[in-house]
Amino acid sequence: MTYFRHEIEAMHGYVPGEQPAPGKFIKLNTNENPYPPSPAVVRAIREVAEGGLNRYPDPSATAFRLRAADVLNVDPDWILCANGSDEILTMVTRAFVGQGQLLRLPYPSYVLYRTLAEIQGARSEEVRFGPDWGLTPAFASASHDLRLAFLPNPNSPSGTIVAPDRVLSLAARLPCPILVDEAYADFADTNCLGLVAQNDKIMVARSLSKSYALAGLRFGFLVAQPHIIRQLIKVKDSYNCDALAIAGATAAISDQAWLIDNRNRILTSRTRLQRQLTDLGLSFVPSHANFVWCTDPEQPARPVYEKLKTNHVLVRYMDYPTWGDGLRISVGTDEQIDACVTLLKAIRNDGAKC
Amino acid sequence: MTYFRHEIEAMHGYVPGEQPAPGKFIKLNTNENPYPPSPAVVRAIREVAEGGLNRYPDPSATAFRLRAADVLNVDPDWILCANGSDEILTMVTRAFVGQGQLLRLPYPSYVLYRTLAEIQGARSEEVRFGPDWGLTPAFASASHDLRLAFLPNPNSPSGTIVAPDRVLSLAARLPCPILVDEAYADFADTNCLGLVAQNDKIMVARSLSKSYALAGLRFGFLVAQPHIIRQLIKVKDSYNCDALAIAGATAAISDQAWLIDNRNRILTSRTRLQRQLTDLGLSFVPSHANFVWCTDPEQPARPVYEKLKTNHVLVRYMDYPTWGDGLRISVGTDEQIDACVTLLKAIRNDGAKC
Repeated sequence: MTYFRHEIEAMHGYVPGEQPAPGKFIKLNTNENPYPPSPAVVRAIREVAEGGLNRYPDPSATAFRLRAADVLNVDPDWILCANGSDEILTMVTRAFVGQGQLLRLPYPSYVLYRTLAEIQGARSEEVRFGPDWGLTPAFASASHDLRLAFLPNPNSPSGTIVAPDRVLSLAARLPCPILVDEAYADFADTNCLGLVAQNDKIMVARSLSKSYALAGLRFGFLVAQPHIIRQLIKVKDSYNCDALAIAGATAAISDQAWLIDNRNRILTSRTRLQRQLTDLGLSFVPSHANFVWCTDPEQPARPVYEKLKTNHVLVRYMDYPTWGDGLRISVGTDEQIDACVTLLKAIRNDGAKC
Repeated sequence: MTYFRHEIEAMHGYVPGEQPAPGKFIKLNTNENPYPPSPAVVRAIREVAEGGLNRYPDPSATAFRLRAADVLNVDPDWILCANGSDEILTMVTRAFVGQGQLLRLPYPSYVLYRTLAEIQGARSEEVRFGPDWGLTPAFASASHDLRLAFLPNPNSPSGTIVAPDRVLSLAARLPCPILVDEAYADFADTNCLGLVAQNDKIMVARSLSKSYALAGLRFGFLVAQPHIIRQLIKVKDSYNCDALAIAGATAAISDQAWLIDNRNRILTSRTRLQRQLTDLGLSFVPSHANFVWCTDPEQPARPVYEKLKTNHVLVRYMDYPTWGDGLRISVGTDEQIDACVTLLKAIRNDGAKC
């Protein structure tokens, strides 16, 4: 006999990308930043570790919100902090989508969105991306009990972006709020932050995992209108961000010079990776994120992933039913990328010999 | 027009104890440990901060589970780690209690349990403690759609404990699982950890916030049978514990000598505080936790709380409708306790003059 809700028993659960022990692989599978974070982050963490761990952290992470408000040009009460932007996605789902109600997401995109609907006992509806990863009008159509739409922008695995004016017009037609998941926006040329003030149905989630090189810290935040934030706080664990994460994140967002410098390095490596993939004859989608989605017109993707892994290079293999599979390669250092591309070349030559 | 679930709009939200800026108050209101954590914690955090923040943490906090398993004499796969034990309470609620179903809790106890039911759109049923804070048979009775019971043990605000054999017999009769919330168990003489193997309906939650002086770190864990843990993992955010928290918590639980020494200090101060309260003529419940629940038979509690606050001593004022109000005083250092008691004495004398 089970005591669990049947939705929980029935679901498979989200499986994150492999996290092997450090040092075993060149790790290009979970879009981590290959560089260490700003030194100011380490200093801030050390200070808190030495002084304040026995006390509860600030439940609303005020220090971070004040600095982020400055940097992003919004008011601090438009910002809600979380234990990673995944927690923002969880909070938003719990606040808007009840049992049996509907959550919409584009396909293919971040698999977690569907898992969040499943945990909630909600339904989810996938709307396929159109040609060139554009959003079709179906994404904004009315549907029975539709309560929330997720839009990863840039999208994963494609690295593509939906232009802000398009997001604004979709939001205007949608009968529910839309969460624009901007985990990768710092690597793009545009973002939807400015839309939040124009339509209170638009919320923007950000992460410090990628562009601030802080995946290990777990810190993300939401930008939304204050009356939205006030309701979402009710769903938040009181002390969801620990004292070290608040201090580290505050130091990180205060060091915009580091962000710009790191971004430039990643974007230069991304261009280099895309050029190398072209030279190899692989197909890829031009990326606005810190990863590239590529497919090989000549051979299936899974064996390539496996051969790379055997040779200690870990990329993300994704297989989307009815859409196709491919490899998502994170933008590492140039040396890491070179190692990956050299292997891809060898695997291709081997394949050609068969 | 609102887009929120009506349960969210309708609820008030949990309000945690005040967290003023450091240094302003002698803070005896949120049961923090007045001493810094083991120095090993600080060393472990510094090491991770300097080396590994750009990578995602281990999703299952293996290092902690291995050490905790040793210390607690259970298998590592009986342990589930979380971003504070509040997150364990959230996960368990989401996994077991669906919309409209019932969650049971004793009264008065931890107010958050009811909030968790509200977020879930579930009903909650409070069963009043009996004389001397014992649990009556009503706590184990059948009830329509009852899916989960919470039992804080030691309880807050009372600091009282229900004996493990009593918990075992209640669990046997309960038609649902029971979460024994042992946030304060390290300050008691007994606990329910050994019951988990005897009945798979019994789960035990632990926190590192109090007895390990790590409220700022956010780390808690659940001990339950492995088939329970496997389902709960589906509800967990993939990377719910950050790399710094995992390292710090692992170092903390490895330093049992620190735990024993700190516990002895707190228990000595608790005895001292209770003796001083007796001398003052205040009523209190003998505590098995790191706080004491006291009431003044001669004057109302709220003005006393306010006068203490005016004098920079912060205790927790709690008012439980149909039960009564009182002050919950955390066991601080002897100096902090003395400052609080001196003020209580002066306030009492003032009161006598009115």
